[in-house]
Amino acid sequence: MKAAIIGTTGYTGLLLLRILESHPDIEEIIPVSSSKAGTHVSEFDPGFVPSAIEAKMKATGGKAVSLEEAAKMDIDVVFAALPHLKSAELCGPFFGKSVVIDLSADLRIKDEEIFKKAYGVEVPRPDLLEKAVYGLPEWFADDIKKADIIAGPGCYPTSALLPLLPLLKEGIISPSKIIVNSISGISGAGKKLMANLLFCERTENAGAYNPGRIHRHTLEIETYLKGENSGSHVLFTPHLAPVKRGMVTTTYVDLKKEVTHEKIRETYNKYYSQAPFVNLRDSIPQSRDVWGTNRCDMAFHMEGDTLILMSAIDNLIKGSTGQVVQCMNLRFGLEETAGLKLTNEL
Amino acid sequence: MKAAIIGTTGYTGLLLLRILESHPDIEEIIPVSSSKAGTHVSEFDPGFVPSAIEAKMKATGGKAVSLEEAAKMDIDVVFAALPHLKSAELCGPFFGKSVVIDLSADLRIKDEEIFKKAYGVEVPRPDLLEKAVYGLPEWFADDIKKADIIAGPGCYPTSALLPLLPLLKEGIISPSKIIVNSISGISGAGKKLMANLLFCERTENAGAYNPGRIHRHTLEIETYLKGENSGSHVLFTPHLAPVKRGMVTTTYVDLKKEVTHEKIRETYNKYYSQAPFVNLRDSIPQSRDVWGTNRCDMAFHMEGDTLILMSAIDNLIKGSTGQVVQCMNLRFGLEETAGLKLTNEL
Amino acid sequence: MKAAIIGTTGYTGLLLLRILESHPDIEEIIPVSSSKAGTHVSEFDPGFVPSAIEAKMKATGGKAVSLEEAAKMDIDVVFAALPHLKSAELCGPFFGKSVVIDLSADLRIKDEEIFKKAYGVEVPRPDLLEKAVYGLPEWFADDIKKADIIAGPGCYPTSALLPLLPLLKEGIISPSKIIVNSISGISGAGKKLMANLLFCERTENAGAYNPGRIHRHTLEIETYLKGENSGSHVLFTPHLAPVKRGMVTTTYVDLKKEVTHEKIRETYNKYYSQAPFVNLRDSIPQSRDVWGTNRCDMAFHMEGDTLILMSAIDNLIKGSTGQVVQCMNLRFGLEETAGLKLTNEL
Amino acid sequence: MKAAIIGTTGYTGLLLLRILESHPDIEEIIPVSSSKAGTHVSEFDPGFVPSAIEAKMKATGGKAVSLEEAAKMDIDVVFAALPHLKSAELCGPFFGKSVVIDLSADLRIKDEEIFKKAYGVEVPRPDLLEKAVYGLPEWFADDIKKADIIAGPGCYPTSALLPLLPLLKEGIISPSKIIVNSISGISGAGKKLMANLLFCERTENAGAYNPGRIHRHTLEIETYLKGENSGSHVLFTPHLAPVKRGMVTTTYVDLKKEVTHEKIRETYNKYYSQAPFVNLRDSIPQSRDVWGTNRCDMAFHMEGDTLILMSAIDNLIKGSTGQVVQCMNLRFGLEETAGLKLTNEL
Repeated sequence: MKAAIIGTTGYTGLLLLRILESHPDIEEIIPVSSSKAGTHVSEFDPGFVPSAIEAKMKATGGKAVSLEEAAKMDIDVVFAALPHLKSAELCGPFFGKSVVIDLSADLRIKDEEIFKKAYGVEVPRPDLLEKAVYGLPEWFADDIKKADIIAGPGCYPTSALLPLLPLLKEGIISPSKIIVNSISGISGAGKKLMANLLFCERTENAGAYNPGRIHRHTLEIETYLKGENSGSHVLFTPHLAPVKRGMVTTTYVDLKKEVTHEKIRETYNKYYSQAPFVNLRDSIPQSRDVWGTNRCDMAFHMEGDTLILMSAIDNLIKGSTGQVVQCMNLRFGLEETAGLKLTNEL
Repeated sequence: MKAAIIGTTGYTGLLLLRILESHPDIEEIIPVSSSKAGTHVSEFDPGFVPSAIEAKMKATGGKAVSLEEAAKMDIDVVFAALPHLKSAELCGPFFGKSVVIDLSADLRIKDEEIFKKAYGVEVPRPDLLEKAVYGLPEWFADDIKKADIIAGPGCYPTSALLPLLPLLKEGIISPSKIIVNSISGISGAGKKLMANLLFCERTENAGAYNPGRIHRHTLEIETYLKGENSGSHVLFTPHLAPVKRGMVTTTYVDLKKEVTHEKIRETYNKYYSQAPFVNLRDSIPQSRDVWGTNRCDMAFHMEGDTLILMSAIDNLIKGSTGQVVQCMNLRFGLEETAGLKLTNEL
Repeated sequence: MKAAIIGTTGYTGLLLLRILESHPDIEEIIPVSSSKAGTHVSEFDPGFVPSAIEAKMKATGGKAVSLEEAAKMDIDVVFAALPHLKSAELCGPFFGKSVVIDLSADLRIKDEEIFKKAYGVEVPRPDLLEKAVYGLPEWFADDIKKADIIAGPGCYPTSALLPLLPLLKEGIISPSKIIVNSISGISGAGKKLMANLLFCERTENAGAYNPGRIHRHTLEIETYLKGENSGSHVLFTPHLAPVKRGMVTTTYVDLKKEVTHEKIRETYNKYYSQAPFVNLRDSIPQSRDVWGTNRCDMAFHMEGDTLILMSAIDNLIKGSTGQVVQCMNLRFGLEETAGLKLTNEL
Repeated sequence: MKAAIIGTTGYTGLLLLRILESHPDIEEIIPVSSSKAGTHVSEFDPGFVPSAIEAKMKATGGKAVSLEEAAKMDIDVVFAALPHLKSAELCGPFFGKSVVIDLSADLRIKDEEIFKKAYGVEVPRPDLLEKAVYGLPEWFADDIKKADIIAGPGCYPTSALLPLLPLLKEGIISPSKIIVNSISGISGAGKKLMANLLFCERTENAGAYNPGRIHRHTLEIETYLKGENSGSHVLFTPHLAPVKRGMVTTTYVDLKKEVTHEKIRETYNKYYSQAPFVNLRDSIPQSRDVWGTNRCDMAFHMEGDTLILMSAIDNLIKGSTGQVVQCMNLRFGLEETAGLKLTNEL
């Protein structure tokens, strides 16, 4: 298989390069960059040694090519690791030719009004909304297997949706006030030159931002909860902590009826017993437990009529690059876990 | 004034030494340590230089003295920076002689049944419960001014109670389901030799622990909310993040009635306009904003019928040592801010 | 006394504001900023609360003023916390009127050829070189007391010069190959929007840069060693580690003759026994020991005919802002330690 | 192939488990632990999910076995991840039966006097010294291929020896005063319950320890330099910085004769052009560049008659677990890079 990555200098692009480099079914990687065409990828990041990274870049000799050059190539799957509101448009030449997997938010929200509320502008390519499948494999595997356009989910939504969806679908929890609290590593903000992301501003610092319904991901979470219960209403508060990679989410929901601990466990098993990357635990997941893996570790705690759900992902893997590779695996009939890790980095 | 610190090798003891060293009204500091009697405090921590730290330790020449020796001295105020369940007992010789300010949890919860639920054992000194005043100066200043025993509040309760109490007292928020989420720096756990506190276990790691009603501080928070509304019920989930010092708390409460943004601001002003360390902000407080200060920075966000309260403190200062010095200031008729900082460390 | 700070939004400017705010002899602070004139300093940094920071800003109501406005004011001392190569010029209006203390490198190196080698351009204000005194108080106190222009030393030079100068002056060590290795915190690079300074690039990362004689500070170190021995030759390699504030320097020098451990100790005592901020230790200084202080902690280890010198400073304090306040104290006949800390932050 | 790991709860044991889990030639892993026999390895570390880690633990069902049980099994290679001075003895039952690869220092230094100087006690198993090959594959591959006992090198020696040995062997540098400066991540100290290793003690802190010739690794470095030039004499100063994994070493050596930049490059190529894990660079290696890899990245800088060598490794991989797996690969005729990474973790 031949895969292209558009946008190879940001954190998700650089990580996709790494995952595909060791993916057993990828034979050729085409790094695509408008601004860096002609530059060897080892210059983007000294973590690469040319000998290793070039092994699967025979077509380009390890160099990035322009969008125009890439458009002329025969590519099975295109990963777009591009900024929101630019991604769908820049992928233009590949729709219809290759399977396109977009890591941006451009095609995640189907309702144009809601998209506009979240992003402040019109959906960039409304014509594609219907075709684009939301790439959460534990819930939309059947659609993903047939999709030619896949919209990779956001990191916060992934960590919130996986523990919530089974309980909402089974009517165990109330949809009306779902309180989601997350702590994210700094890499979630990308490699942007902002004062707020400098080492000296983030070390020895933690705090909330965009509380309630301000963060764009609130509406993404709500969209996919509404798929199970149209009354879903989410309050979401993200926090930053000084870790590079990692995300933990603590969610409070009301139980609709009395249930046993065992019933909740069974419900999760019903939906996730065959899901290789969902790991239901008795202990509370910490972000390091899943660092470098495509896992979502989950635990729950019942407290009267409230259920507290705790989940942990690596925001750059299950929250981004790993999840879209999982989508690719499903779409091309590969082993679902191919190229993805289950054991964390120490 | 002469002040003794019992327990000078832990983080709170070492920090009290620093605060009292530069406090304008403290003339003499007596460091007290059972295990380290006879040792110079500069050996506890190379952050001290003898010449500076000895300036206010003329009585002991900079050396720690034993509890027995301290008991024979004439001391105005005794700070006990000792482990829970040992503190009240070890302070025995000082009750009735000196003002005793206990940083442990031993005397915080007045209801013996609730204490037992929280700490698993009987209250160590039930005879003192009635006399011991909860050292939250913004709420109990009048009592603190007359108290001979003061129980310094926990860090999590401080960050939760300050934003909640005015709204609960004024009947603006519902007491029935108060959801408190906190992120704490690692120093909150003290200087204990536990694998879980090693650098390599905590760096690049974040996560929840003791969710719901498991953490002991839940009952401490609830105790003091019940003072304003007996129906108060708290769900509290603490999280750890890799910072040394700092705490941010995000609290969700239901509004009892429709209120304006302005009304909430007025309510806070009613209670805190004269409180030098409460800082109501429009922007969301981050832990670094208050690092090294005795401030509690607060902000709120209204979202339909839910109010989101966000607060930040330095867990070792306003959450511990600074707050008890504030109590001392009130008790001895000193300037409330004496020896305490309003501007953060960069 | 009235002090102005030009450049109040960078790390050194923000820290000078803090030091002067609590300095007992400063009555008025004038914050000066070309780009931010009219903005309240609390907007530069939420670590300030207006009530506290305004107390010494009566003339401006807490707002920054423009250079032009400041030039019309009556100011005793002007601190320039500005970028290299711009600082001396921007201070133009204040020379001759106020004592000017420049934190930049513009006036540190007296030899115009060497300056050009280090900075690639001509000395900005060669006319001032003779008047400008190098602000290392432990060596140039007499000159500093009379100076109207003071050039604050760099952080690396401070940490290297203090342990080296006494030994070089006494002829104990050979000048011919002095190997200086430093590890610096990230704040040494300032608050610049560079990818290399992002949290995700610096956390879990350490390494050398500009080895040998490439770093500009090599020539600054050498300049002041040559003052004692014209044959001085320095190899200097700085390293970055993921701390915000802190610098440790390990220096290797050859002994010129056999000396005893005691002789070295005596030599240091000869020069530093009255220096309040030099702390000779038996244990090896770590950067946290001096965090927040104006101290330079030092230790030495003899190994055959090689002497290993180890020193630690807070790069932003003794390596920058604290040292220039120490200079101001000397210049204006104040207590040398006024406003400066000897005990570290925990 | 069947591999046993003795000592599976420390950082090196846990990391060996991970490397062998994904090693293409390892079919069965036997986790061995005296204290934890009968416990499932997933309980040692929540980073493991049973389903994944058990795949290669069919013999034990994922549980650790005792030394006695392991001794009865048929095992090809035994990795001992045990404390110094205990390791060689505990491996007793496996010598002669399996290839034993010892990660401790017990068998690294061949001269019993020097061992005693370094470790303060007698060599634990002097009878094995002659048989044990020093596991630095870039220098001792021929011996390693035939060895039944391999002593894995220390992390500091690995980072120092690789850049030094070719130059020393070719007579380019003087052996008489080699100055080695290293910065290590905290994991180098293992998972010990020491106050000095707590998060709050190490974060925002850096500094030297055991300077000159005090650190035990000095003599290990010197031993293997002496193999090329008996006059070798090393001064070594390690430093700690707040990273979990990573090591950078800056070494100063005198050139014996005038050489060109090109000559040094050629010398390195002569020895390392076929070495898959040595990466000679023009840019200065930073520790993150090699995080998670078995690489040693190297660069050099000539400054008059001094050569500055800069190297970076992951102290837990090339400095420990990866290097011994590289040894195993050579010993068993596998691909040298099997199971080892060349591209870093982002």
